Amino acid sequence: MHPYRTHSCAALRGTDAGQTARLSGWVHSKRDHGGLLFIDLRDHHGITQIVFPAGSDLLASVEKLRVESVITVTGEVVRREGATVNPKLATGEIELRAKTLEVQSASDVLPLQVAGTESYPEELRLRYRYIDLRRDKLHRNMMLRAGVIASLRARMIAQGFTEFQTPILTASSPEGARDFLVPARLHPGRFYALPQAPQQFKQLAMIAGFDRYFQIAPCFRDEAARADRSPGEFYQLDFEMSFVTQEDVFATLEPVMAGIFEEFGQGRAVSPAPFPRIPYDQALKLYGSDKPDLRNPLVITDVTARFAGSGFGLFARIAASGGTVRAIPAPGAGGRPRSFFDKLNEWARSEGAGGLGYITFDEQGAAQGPIARNLEPDRALAIREACGLGAGDAVFFAAGAAAEAVKFAGLVRTRIATELDLVEKEAFRFCWITDFPMYEVNEETGQVDFSHNPFSMPQGGLEALNNHDPLTIKAYQYDIVCNGIELSSGAIRNHLPEVMIRAFQIAGYPESEVEARFGGMLNAFRYGAPPHGGSAPGVDRIVMLLADEPNIREVILFPLNQQGEDPMMGAPAPVEAKRLKELSLQLDLPPVKTVGGPLRSVPQAPPEISGR
Amino acid sequence: MHPYRTHSCAALRGTDAGQTARLSGWVHSKRDHGGLLFIDLRDHHGITQIVFPAGSDLLASVEKLRVESVITVTGEVVRREGATVNPKLATGEIELRAKTLEVQSASDVLPLQVAGTESYPEELRLRYRYIDLRRDKLHRNMMLRAGVIASLRARMIAQGFTEFQTPILTASSPEGARDFLVPARLHPGRFYALPQAPQQFKQLAMIAGFDRYFQIAPCFRDEAARADRSPGEFYQLDFEMSFVTQEDVFATLEPVMAGIFEEFGQGRAVSPAPFPRIPYDQALKLYGSDKPDLRNPLVITDVTARFAGSGFGLFARIAASGGTVRAIPAPGAGGRPRSFFDKLNEWARSEGAGGLGYITFDEQGAAQGPIARNLEPDRALAIREACGLGAGDAVFFAAGAAAEAVKFAGLVRTRIATELDLVEKEAFRFCWITDFPMYEVNEETGQVDFSHNPFSMPQGGLEALNNHDPLTIKAYQYDIVCNGIELSSGAIRNHLPEVMIRAFQIAGYPESEVEARFGGMLNAFRYGAPPHGGSAPGVDRIVMLLADEPNIREVILFPLNQQGEDPMMGAPAPVEAKRLKELSLQLDLPPVKTVGGPLRSVPQAPPEISGR
Repeated sequence: MHPYRTHSCAALRGTDAGQTARLSGWVHSKRDHGGLLFIDLRDHHGITQIVFPAGSDLLASVEKLRVESVITVTGEVVRREGATVNPKLATGEIELRAKTLEVQSASDVLPLQVAGTESYPEELRLRYRYIDLRRDKLHRNMMLRAGVIASLRARMIAQGFTEFQTPILTASSPEGARDFLVPARLHPGRFYALPQAPQQFKQLAMIAGFDRYFQIAPCFRDEAARADRSPGEFYQLDFEMSFVTQEDVFATLEPVMAGIFEEFGQGRAVSPAPFPRIPYDQALKLYGSDKPDLRNPLVITDVTARFAGSGFGLFARIAASGGTVRAIPAPGAGGRPRSFFDKLNEWARSEGAGGLGYITFDEQGAAQGPIARNLEPDRALAIREACGLGAGDAVFFAAGAAAEAVKFAGLVRTRIATELDLVEKEAFRFCWITDFPMYEVNEETGQVDFSHNPFSMPQGGLEALNNHDPLTIKAYQYDIVCNGIELSSGAIRNHLPEVMIRAFQIAGYPESEVEARFGGMLNAFRYGAPPHGGSAPGVDRIVMLLADEPNIREVILFPLNQQGEDPMMGAPAPVEAKRLKELSLQLDLPPVKTVGGPLRSVPQAPPEISGR
Repeated sequence: MHPYRTHSCAALRGTDAGQTARLSGWVHSKRDHGGLLFIDLRDHHGITQIVFPAGSDLLASVEKLRVESVITVTGEVVRREGATVNPKLATGEIELRAKTLEVQSASDVLPLQVAGTESYPEELRLRYRYIDLRRDKLHRNMMLRAGVIASLRARMIAQGFTEFQTPILTASSPEGARDFLVPARLHPGRFYALPQAPQQFKQLAMIAGFDRYFQIAPCFRDEAARADRSPGEFYQLDFEMSFVTQEDVFATLEPVMAGIFEEFGQGRAVSPAPFPRIPYDQALKLYGSDKPDLRNPLVITDVTARFAGSGFGLFARIAASGGTVRAIPAPGAGGRPRSFFDKLNEWARSEGAGGLGYITFDEQGAAQGPIARNLEPDRALAIREACGLGAGDAVFFAAGAAAEAVKFAGLVRTRIATELDLVEKEAFRFCWITDFPMYEVNEETGQVDFSHNPFSMPQGGLEALNNHDPLTIKAYQYDIVCNGIELSSGAIRNHLPEVMIRAFQIAGYPESEVEARFGGMLNAFRYGAPPHGGSAPGVDRIVMLLADEPNIREVILFPLNQQGEDPMMGAPAPVEAKRLKELSLQLDLPPVKTVGGPLRSVPQAPPEISGR
């Protein structure tokens, strides 16, 4: 017999009754039923009830056992009778009647409980992550994550992609965020950078001729943590394809994403492929956002013209001065009490808006409320119809300078749908946002600048760059959005050196600077580069959506805390002075104000450091 | 029709004749056949011959095209006739008669050629890695590597393992090598370390209850490069299992390794599971190495007793003084000329040995040669028989102090088998080396120290530690070896805090120091730890064996060079002074001697740095 187990704790069934079995696992719970003792024994796979019968000479040992001790029990599989069968447990038809007991590892008093649903502070949970991970929800989240990643891999490979590992010790890349740096001991004064994304390497893989690359890629950004962003590392499904159009990229990713969400969505509805393609301009117009949540059925309407020259002076003036008025429908809200509208007005002010104007339509479909009092009835009717509304509905307005009003309309759309409980439940709704503008006016400098990714191919190519107003040029750049969350940007890349140089010139960068900063990539484009494009959906975000977890640390095995620390392993940590010396570095610490005067701010720094 | 391709360059067959097809790819070669022009068009999948017929108005454009330009060609699939069929090419039955041509990317003059077999200096190859990767061998190596990794994953998952990602920004770990450090911007004076291996995290995953973990894990060691070791990062098939014995680990890994080598070995023989288990002591005795190459049939014999008190004074004295004499058989070498033995003697001296004694056996089986002249014939006969030799064979001797003689015997074994061409060809021969000693005497200090991994479980546990001579205690520690190359160490881990503390005490570390250095792990063992063990075969080494590549950079997509630099991306690189300031660091560069006096050694350092 195996020294530890003949079965997992999820394996035994009624048909095994009479057999001798050996199980190993953690003492999940212990119950004393007057003379006999029950243990729920837990392993990765499940739980089996162990019974130590009255009179057993093991009882004394079992009584001393703390929960979460690891034990090995050998005994007879016994069928449970009648009401003692537990239908909620896979092994609920049986119990194991213990004959021998071996304690593999006795547990101390626990800092947090595994069984039960008690909440604990996150810092405690991270310090004892190995205990917290035994709890059911976290354990399931990790298995979900692993399942998602394995399935992503299988789906990409089935589509002809090959997974390659790109370098982690590499050069600083021209992404937007801050790199983590790694001092190069053998090259004093030089540093590797951890990749913010394998962007350049995946493009080089295309230039090297590999056709379809993917990677579950670790990425590193030295940025502050957010609920949906770890402070250090994160993973993306990084992929790139050669000889493709934007539609080819969409058609490739859609079945992967739809498939994953169907496989792991536990019955929740998933957008069928093809996902809606929504041009960026259209997304702002209809949803007030380039990350629209399509579970929300509300659509925004531009009603500026309806207010131009109208009797409602505030909006008429906005229309006259080049501003915009956006209407957000509120179906069925016409009969809501005044307090409903007042509360929304309060909310709008808390968001920095002047307020939230509205019109209600009574049971005859006539416009009511403060705005309606000053607005010509035929205009109100036209608005009602433009918004597809009728008797008993209401409409809200976001008005002002275009950029702000459009964005605020998006917030109102979300808020109204939530208030009215209109957001589709148990669903994953995808869309592509396409045709992002190549350039925008930098608000600080007033100059034309790249609006998103300078390395995307401009639509119309060199001809457009040479002949069109830069602010009208779109890029082959796209986002994939699910339930209002951006999973990834992507693009057809600019693979033509002359187009890239011209694109940068328009944004104010002379050729010499482009060569100096991006010479490596530009050079590669000069030895035969295929047209190529790709994207990189965030793995952590996909798992967060599927697990319905708003906190990214709930879907990462050993996450850093929000301050970028690992309280379990003690990272980051001071290092010995001789290690810094090897790296040709010295600390240059900011002074810390204390009562006794300025001090260096390193706690636990080895003595050598304070003597520098 | 798709703008880039209707087929890959490996897809078209004779049955496609008459169709219109569009292909995209690189101009692999160009041939002018007096009027008509042929292009071999290459993509990731294969090669198709394109013909530009005499009189085609595309000829002028094609003539200007340099090889490795990327083009799209549309034309008619035409069946080749008779001798023009190319049976070596999957598409050799057809050619594409070009009607339109689009140049997607014109190539400059190439720094290295893709077609052909010319060799180039490695530095040039690394600088233009994206061109080098298009060459057939390197392209195949990368696809082999990707295939091996995908298959490793599938095989581990099929065995019930789950892949988890462990942290890359973490704490310094107690492995043997030097960590790479990453300054933590938000924690002045503190540093993350990149993991040398996920050893602690995989053990914590077991303590967290995940049962069977694996990962194709990136690992980082700041060590000098070797032919089989990259200077920065490498990958291992990291795995760990709970509730297992050493034999369970072996039985798990064997089908994975045998399966991989059968799948990708192109018909080469592979050791069937179970692989031989060879205790460490036995490996040294029989093969003179703890990494024996079992393709080599030669087995070493201890013949010290045969020489003790014999007429051959040199070996008799060695035997008398506690030294050892090891016999290495050389079947069939009895008739070799004197020069054969002289050459081997020279080689032995170059290895630092005094020489290489030998006995030859003539056609009657009688001992001959310098040693035999002084050795009693019955002793020579006994040696012949102990070594399983007969007439026409020879035997060599490695003699001296035990440790050196054993090791030298191993070298002789390899050398003799190579000279006599006895090493099995086209085969992968695996073995496990088991029962490594827990302790050894540190030659510098004379004290008892750990001989390998302090975290392995000592055989006999606490009882052995308390009652036995430490130098006789074995560990549940093992290596897996293929063709003389160590693919991995592994162990059943010590999961018992009291055993660990006692094990460290024996090696001279007080409990307080163990708690200070490894408190994180020790603490985890106190809340219920399962018995567990694992291993971590090197992925790069597996691919090197399969690809028959002695240079690790031939199996890595974008490797660093031997100096730890990436000449293509320019890593490592100086950073701006303000970046160092953010990290609370200053450079502390070693002085460089120049004619004009001492200077700091940073090339291209931004001006701010020289002004510090």
